[in-house]
Amino acid sequence: MEIKFMKKALELAENGIGYTNPNPLVGAVIVKEGNIIGEGYHEFFGGPHAEINAFKNATEDVTGATMYVSLEPCSHYGKTPPCAEAIVHNGIKKVVIAMEDPNPEVSGRGIKLLRENNIEVITGVLQEESRKLNEIFIKYITTKLPFCLLKSAMTLDGKIASVTGDSKWITNNESRQYVHKLRNRMSAVMVGAGTVMKDDPFLNTRLINGDGRDPVRIIVDSSARIPVTSTVLNLKSRAKTIIATTTLAKDEKLKELEKKGAEIIVTPIAETKVDLKYLMKALGDRDIDSVLLEGGSELNYSAIKENIVDKINLFIAPKIIGGRDAKTPVGGVGIKFMKDAVHLKDIKTVTFGQDIMIEGYLDKEG
Amino acid sequence: MEIKFMKKALELAENGIGYTNPNPLVGAVIVKEGNIIGEGYHEFFGGPHAEINAFKNATEDVTGATMYVSLEPCSHYGKTPPCAEAIVHNGIKKVVIAMEDPNPEVSGRGIKLLRENNIEVITGVLQEESRKLNEIFIKYITTKLPFCLLKSAMTLDGKIASVTGDSKWITNNESRQYVHKLRNRMSAVMVGAGTVMKDDPFLNTRLINGDGRDPVRIIVDSSARIPVTSTVLNLKSRAKTIIATTTLAKDEKLKELEKKGAEIIVTPIAETKVDLKYLMKALGDRDIDSVLLEGGSELNYSAIKENIVDKINLFIAPKIIGGRDAKTPVGGVGIKFMKDAVHLKDIKTVTFGQDIMIEGYLDKEG
Repeated sequence: MEIKFMKKALELAENGIGYTNPNPLVGAVIVKEGNIIGEGYHEFFGGPHAEINAFKNATEDVTGATMYVSLEPCSHYGKTPPCAEAIVHNGIKKVVIAMEDPNPEVSGRGIKLLRENNIEVITGVLQEESRKLNEIFIKYITTKLPFCLLKSAMTLDGKIASVTGDSKWITNNESRQYVHKLRNRMSAVMVGAGTVMKDDPFLNTRLINGDGRDPVRIIVDSSARIPVTSTVLNLKSRAKTIIATTTLAKDEKLKELEKKGAEIIVTPIAETKVDLKYLMKALGDRDIDSVLLEGGSELNYSAIKENIVDKINLFIAPKIIGGRDAKTPVGGVGIKFMKDAVHLKDIKTVTFGQDIMIEGYLDKEG
Repeated sequence: MEIKFMKKALELAENGIGYTNPNPLVGAVIVKEGNIIGEGYHEFFGGPHAEINAFKNATEDVTGATMYVSLEPCSHYGKTPPCAEAIVHNGIKKVVIAMEDPNPEVSGRGIKLLRENNIEVITGVLQEESRKLNEIFIKYITTKLPFCLLKSAMTLDGKIASVTGDSKWITNNESRQYVHKLRNRMSAVMVGAGTVMKDDPFLNTRLINGDGRDPVRIIVDSSARIPVTSTVLNLKSRAKTIIATTTLAKDEKLKELEKKGAEIIVTPIAETKVDLKYLMKALGDRDIDSVLLEGGSELNYSAIKENIVDKINLFIAPKIIGGRDAKTPVGGVGIKFMKDAVHLKDIKTVTFGQDIMIEGYLDKEG
C-alpha cells in the first residue's frame, strides 16, 4: 500500500524535471481510507512545494489523512513557508517519507517538528528511488558543486567520429531524443571550443513535443577562440551562454563575446587549459546544479582526470567505422596502466532501438 | 509438448560443443506416451549421430514412438549409415525436426525418405534456436568458408590497451572464462604477428573445470616475423599452429617455423598483407569450420574490410583509461564517413559481472 502511494509521489515529482533546479524534485499524495484525495508536486523553482500543492488540490477534508511525500517536508522559511507546519495545521495524522532532506543544515528538522506534533512519521520508503531521482540535488546541496553527467556517443569500435571527423549521425533518433531530455533536465550543457568550431552546434533542447527548457550553454575555451558568429552566441534562447576561459584570452575578444550576451568566467590556467575544478565551483556559485558534459575527447579526459564527473551515459551504436586515428570518447594523454583505470559502478544498460546506452557512476572510492 | 521435447534435444546437442566440428551439433529424444525413453546427441566428429545414440540409449521398445531431432536426419552413407533408414527400421511413427539440413546437396532428402515410409514428419519446431546453435555449420556447409567470430575487449571509452600498451586485464574473470568457452567451441583462433610478439599468448583453452579442446592457432604474419621461441610454437597442445604468410617471408624462416611443427600457408599479398579471403578459403579446405578472431586493431580492420567476419562479441569493461593514442578494437585507415559504416544486426547484450558483452552479426546486406 505504502509503496504504491510513494511510487505515485515519485511519478508526480518527475513532472518537475527541468523546472525546479537547483531545488529538488518532490511529489506528494494525500491518502484517506485507501484513496488518493490530493496530489501535488514541486512544479518550478520558487513555486509552492509539493505538499502545499497537494493540499491545494485536495478533493475532500484532509483531516486525519496520511501524506506520502518523496522528500522530508521542510521546516524553514525559505521562498515559501515551511511545509511541516502546513502538515500540522491541516491535521494530517501520518506522514510517509521516502528520504530525509540531504541538506545537512536542515536534515531531520522537518521530521522532528512533525513528531513533536504527534504525527506518526515513517521514513525510508522507496528511499533509493527518491535518491536517484534527486541525485543532482543531493550532490549540489551537499557540495555546492554541480552534478556532472558526461554524455558521449560512439560506434561499437569506440569512435566518436570517423577519421575525417564525420560524426553525423552515430546514434539513432531515439538516442538523440533522449539527449534532448537530458538537456531539458540539466541546468547547463558544456562543450569545448573545438566542438563549437567543428560542429557549430545549437546546444539547445529540441524535444519532439516542442516543450522543454534550454540549458545554460558553457563553452570551455581557454584562449577564447570561438568566432562571435558561432550559433551558440546567436541563437534565440532564454538561456545564456557562458564562456569559460583563462588569461590566455585577449581582452578585446572577451569584450566582443560579452557584446554577444555571453557571460565570461576567467579561471586560473591548469596545464594551459581552463581549470575545471575552479569552473565547477564558479558554476555552483551561479546556482547551476547540474552540467551535461557533451565534450570531445580532450575535454572529457580533462574532466575525468580532474574528477569533476559524477555519472556517464555512453551511447553505443551497432556499427563499425575503424580508423587508428579516429577519435574516441576519452582522449588526452591517457592513464598509463590498466590497474589505474577509473572505475564505474552501478552499471546499467538501456536500449534505444538498436543503440545501447551504458550508464554508470564514477567510483570515487574505487 | 513438442516444444519441451525439442528444447531437450537442443540441450543435448550442446553437449557436443567443441567436438563435432566441422559437423553439426545435433540432439535427439525418443518419446513414447509422453515420456522420454531415449536420448542421444552427436558426441564427436565421425562418431554415431544423435538419432543412433538415442536408439542405443533407449530404455524400452521404440516401436510406434515419436522422435524429436534438432536437425533433419541424414539419408546418405557418410562416416555412418543413414539415420533416416535407422528411424524407419526401428518403427518410429512420427519425427519432429527443428530444421532441415542446410547442406544444399542433401537438404530435404531425409524428410522425403521418412515420408515415403509413411512416417509423419513435422518440421520447423524451434527452428531459429537450432539455426543459431548451428550457425557455424550452416555457414561452413553452404560456403566451405569458416564462420568468423571477432572477439575483442575494451574499456568503456573504447580502448583495447592503455597508451603504454598495457591490456592486463581489461575484463573480469567471468568474461575471460567465456572467451575460453569460445576457444573450446571454435575450430581455430586467429591473431596477428603483432599480438604474438607483444603478448606472447598461449592461445589455448583454459576452462575452469580443466576440460576443453585447444583450437588450431592461426598466426597472420605476412613476413614471418614471430620468433621461433614464441609460446604458440612451443606449448604442449594437441592442436597445431598455422602461420599464414606471404612471399614477403624468408624461406629460411619458414623452414625454421616448420621445424617447430607449424604449418605454413602462403597467401597472395593483399596490400602488403596476408590475403585474408584466400586464407579463409585455405582454412575451409582444411576442414576448419570456424575461426575466433582475437586480433589487434589492424588485423580486425582488415578482417572487417575484407568482409570475412560474420559475428562480433565485444566485451566492455566499466572503466575509463583515456589516451588519444591508445588502441581501439578496430584500427586501420578507417571508413571515411559515418553513412558508410559497417552495420551490425540482431544485437544482444549479455552481462558478465559488471562487464557487458555486445553481440551482433555483420549485416552483409545493410
